[in-house]
Amino acid sequence: MEQNAYDWEVPREWNIRDAYVINPDGQKICDFKKSNLHVLGYSNPIDKTISLDELQEHLYSLPDQPDAIPYVTSYYKERWSFCIAHKDREKLKQGEYRVYIDSDLKDGSLTYGELIIPGERSNEIFLSSYLCHPSMANNELSGPVITTFLAKWINTGLERRKYTYRIVIIPETIGAITYLSRNYKDMKDKVIAGFNVTCVGDERAYSYLPSRQGNTLSDKAALHVLNHLHPDFVTYSFLDRGSDERQYCSPGIDLPVCSVMRTKYGCYPEYHTSLDDLKLVTPAGLFGGYEVLRKAIECLELNERLRTTVYCEPQLGKRGLYPTVSTKSSGVPVRDMMNLLAYSDGKLSTLEIAEKINIPLWGLTETIEKLKRERILELSE
Amino acid sequence: MEQNAYDWEVPREWNIRDAYVINPDGQKICDFKKSNLHVLGYSNPIDKTISLDELQEHLYSLPDQPDAIPYVTSYYKERWSFCIAHKDREKLKQGEYRVYIDSDLKDGSLTYGELIIPGERSNEIFLSSYLCHPSMANNELSGPVITTFLAKWINTGLERRKYTYRIVIIPETIGAITYLSRNYKDMKDKVIAGFNVTCVGDERAYSYLPSRQGNTLSDKAALHVLNHLHPDFVTYSFLDRGSDERQYCSPGIDLPVCSVMRTKYGCYPEYHTSLDDLKLVTPAGLFGGYEVLRKAIECLELNERLRTTVYCEPQLGKRGLYPTVSTKSSGVPVRDMMNLLAYSDGKLSTLEIAEKINIPLWGLTETIEKLKRERILELSE
Amino acid sequence: MEQNAYDWEVPREWNIRDAYVINPDGQKICDFKKSNLHVLGYSNPIDKTISLDELQEHLYSLPDQPDAIPYVTSYYKERWSFCIAHKDREKLKQGEYRVYIDSDLKDGSLTYGELIIPGERSNEIFLSSYLCHPSMANNELSGPVITTFLAKWINTGLERRKYTYRIVIIPETIGAITYLSRNYKDMKDKVIAGFNVTCVGDERAYSYLPSRQGNTLSDKAALHVLNHLHPDFVTYSFLDRGSDERQYCSPGIDLPVCSVMRTKYGCYPEYHTSLDDLKLVTPAGLFGGYEVLRKAIECLELNERLRTTVYCEPQLGKRGLYPTVSTKSSGVPVRDMMNLLAYSDGKLSTLEIAEKINIPLWGLTETIEKLKRERILELSE
Repeated sequence: MEQNAYDWEVPREWNIRDAYVINPDGQKICDFKKSNLHVLGYSNPIDKTISLDELQEHLYSLPDQPDAIPYVTSYYKERWSFCIAHKDREKLKQGEYRVYIDSDLKDGSLTYGELIIPGERSNEIFLSSYLCHPSMANNELSGPVITTFLAKWINTGLERRKYTYRIVIIPETIGAITYLSRNYKDMKDKVIAGFNVTCVGDERAYSYLPSRQGNTLSDKAALHVLNHLHPDFVTYSFLDRGSDERQYCSPGIDLPVCSVMRTKYGCYPEYHTSLDDLKLVTPAGLFGGYEVLRKAIECLELNERLRTTVYCEPQLGKRGLYPTVSTKSSGVPVRDMMNLLAYSDGKLSTLEIAEKINIPLWGLTETIEKLKRERILELSE
Repeated sequence: MEQNAYDWEVPREWNIRDAYVINPDGQKICDFKKSNLHVLGYSNPIDKTISLDELQEHLYSLPDQPDAIPYVTSYYKERWSFCIAHKDREKLKQGEYRVYIDSDLKDGSLTYGELIIPGERSNEIFLSSYLCHPSMANNELSGPVITTFLAKWINTGLERRKYTYRIVIIPETIGAITYLSRNYKDMKDKVIAGFNVTCVGDERAYSYLPSRQGNTLSDKAALHVLNHLHPDFVTYSFLDRGSDERQYCSPGIDLPVCSVMRTKYGCYPEYHTSLDDLKLVTPAGLFGGYEVLRKAIECLELNERLRTTVYCEPQLGKRGLYPTVSTKSSGVPVRDMMNLLAYSDGKLSTLEIAEKINIPLWGLTETIEKLKRERILELSE
Repeated sequence: MEQNAYDWEVPREWNIRDAYVINPDGQKICDFKKSNLHVLGYSNPIDKTISLDELQEHLYSLPDQPDAIPYVTSYYKERWSFCIAHKDREKLKQGEYRVYIDSDLKDGSLTYGELIIPGERSNEIFLSSYLCHPSMANNELSGPVITTFLAKWINTGLERRKYTYRIVIIPETIGAITYLSRNYKDMKDKVIAGFNVTCVGDERAYSYLPSRQGNTLSDKAALHVLNHLHPDFVTYSFLDRGSDERQYCSPGIDLPVCSVMRTKYGCYPEYHTSLDDLKLVTPAGLFGGYEVLRKAIECLELNERLRTTVYCEPQLGKRGLYPTVSTKSSGVPVRDMMNLLAYSDGKLSTLEIAEKINIPLWGLTETIEKLKRERILELSE
């Protein structure tokens, strides 16, 4: 049973039990049980004996990275192949090789995880990560790991949850397209911001890839957090995209989804090889990825439009919020509060004000609460 | 009788007749009659004998500027204190000190000066300066001085006065808030531009602090003048504000008020000390401050929307306005006139055109008059 | 019969048969038959004998370019003069000179060339060049030459001609004004882009002078071509204008006309002298000028608004347009196609998309055709 998703058909379900090559010396090489990467993803079953020359046509390796087994797939054309470290490929001798792949393709299902965490409002924040690159650590297991921890924090750690959260873990591309084809109408008017969570586990860099539109609420939150926490982050262009923002930001879909990453897919040598492993991904790397995404979500939750309840600056002294002696430098400690008030015109959001006055939004929380309690600031929404 | 002004109450009126400290040797120090700065502004009356330790709690001085008496006030909390040069403070010996302040607080009035000079139109240009820092020369007597000379020039020197002028000299902050609370409704639709006049007397720099909105007519005029007359002027951010633009540009008020200054308050060492005196403020410094503000007002008066009365370039030669021989360089002397015509489309104002063609607006006056007389340009308003 | 054109009157027609000066030695100098530049353009007839002093008042020469005869005209005031190389002027001796000009001014006509090449649409692309600087090669014969070749290519070389072409060769200034005064109403709603073709024959530089508005379709096409073909081109300001964009971009006319040139008038030493000749203008120079204008026109013809017919990325693999094996770098060869699809939202034009994805528009033609054939892209207009 094939399923349509917009212009695509979900390919049949692939299952694999074992795969290997027996070399002329009778040794088992390219053993699926040692590394699943040895088999081209979605390989047809095979069991025959062939010459080295014929085998070579079914091998993938990386001459520039002789120790690495490449990660290669072929979802949309049936073939079979093995992937091998180039240094091992160079040792192959003339002779007969038995190639064995015990796999099958059958009607099945496209499985994905979806979690809706309701908030005060039906407006949604959308988190998407993907799970289809077996054995890859930064790209990609880091994504579902961080997404899971974010879900836990959203569910139990967020003091007040203004927004509803739509969290999905899907296969990349076909999963995103399938999910959109079934949920886009519902998402269209609800999703106010979203993040594609990928490559969030190494320690080398922080990276930002904008939405197609480039200035959505997600982009603003991401840039605000990165500017304050990791000002040396790398900014990519939407032209450098390569993950599910390809679908989420496609014309007509246009969801406000950007990516906040550690080192971006395609930009580190271990990418899509057996070297993208737990040497590359570390607890500190994962924590950094988690922290920037959590802060970005916090900014979205904190963001609101406020206005002053009085004309001119309020008399803060009588409320104990302003120094009573006026000297050369008495205004300094209350500067951020005064700046916040000066821009709270009901038009600028607090995220925009925080950017303007160069304070992290989370650094204004206490001041905002104080001024709301004093009824000097009020919601303008 | 307390008066309300938005969120504020006007404090009671403070009057002081004398104040001093008698040291253990019987000498009079911190003598109000020598410098009013010796007394904390708004000090309560006192007359008692205290120890040096107790006195120290009522003294302000500046260790970094040992020769300067600081200027300190406490309008919104009743206390008493003396201000003293730090080098004199360090000479104080143990012993008994008599502290004497002959002041009182009583129901009184907040006094301000207001001058309306009517023009052809009810639209207003607003000038505001303040008078509440006794003995301070640059910040602040320079402000009322220049404002007074501007008023004189507006009243008698301006050939044609298109706009009505609203000129106020008030106490800073409470005066501006009080004035707005009584006049804002009237000003709201009338004021097209305004300047906060302060720190316009020294020779060190020219400075510009924008309105909150940042691109009002005042800002455009100020920048145009400074760019042409003093291109090395210092540009501040609205975040650096600290005078009555705090009120005039507050949310909901949003008057188009910016500041054109010499050296900005807070940005010179003598600021708010006894050193801000007539060594710092000079005739040349004052004249420079006067000139940029007068030019900015001239630009506002000159500014208008013009359009050409004919399609294509007019035939200027037949009117004697264009060279009759065409050589390599014959267009040079009429370049500005041609540029003015090329942009006079009834949409751009002459101030905007002057910016675009990089000529001071006042340098176009003669050309504009000539082209109006020839009926090649006409008002589009 | 004088003719009015907006604010101008077409001057009477000037014809000249011969002109020279006879020096005291009886030799013929300033001989019109050797160079027409020797006579001030539009000179009255004269035949008299005068002193050297009087002659000097009727001579033009360039002390800085002693070998060059300057090009000088006086269309709007009747006078007579000769132009002479400065080194020859310095050799003139005291004595009597016969000055002879056999010219006349009479009612005549302003002659211009106009070619309308109809296309599928009534919307027009406008090309204008001028023909009034006799003996000048770069400024100006290069203009009519290239315009003629463009007309030939438009008429016979363009595969599909979406737009109608209005091509004029006129006298500068008075010709443009006259043409507009008779045709502007017809042009107003039709002309979508236009180029003033001048100074397109030397090899020194490529230059761009914007329309008054600065961001018309002509400007976008010109900049796109120059950025891709000659990224070191010189950008001028509209303030540097000096040709018929003075009329085409005048207030109220506002046609979308900019200039793509080789070295701009006024910016090379030979400008408006006898040195602007076929040493300066070369076949390679002319070809370069032709090529950028032809490419700009191609861009206008190619430009359209497209939209994807499906949500999300289309499944290109099943159409043979996408590699079936996914490796580290399999996306590279299809990058431009994917980028084109990602921005084809029916709002951005293909010219804007090409700019955004940094590909020359003509480099996308094949891909666009392929995607239209596959019904993945369709016109959104």
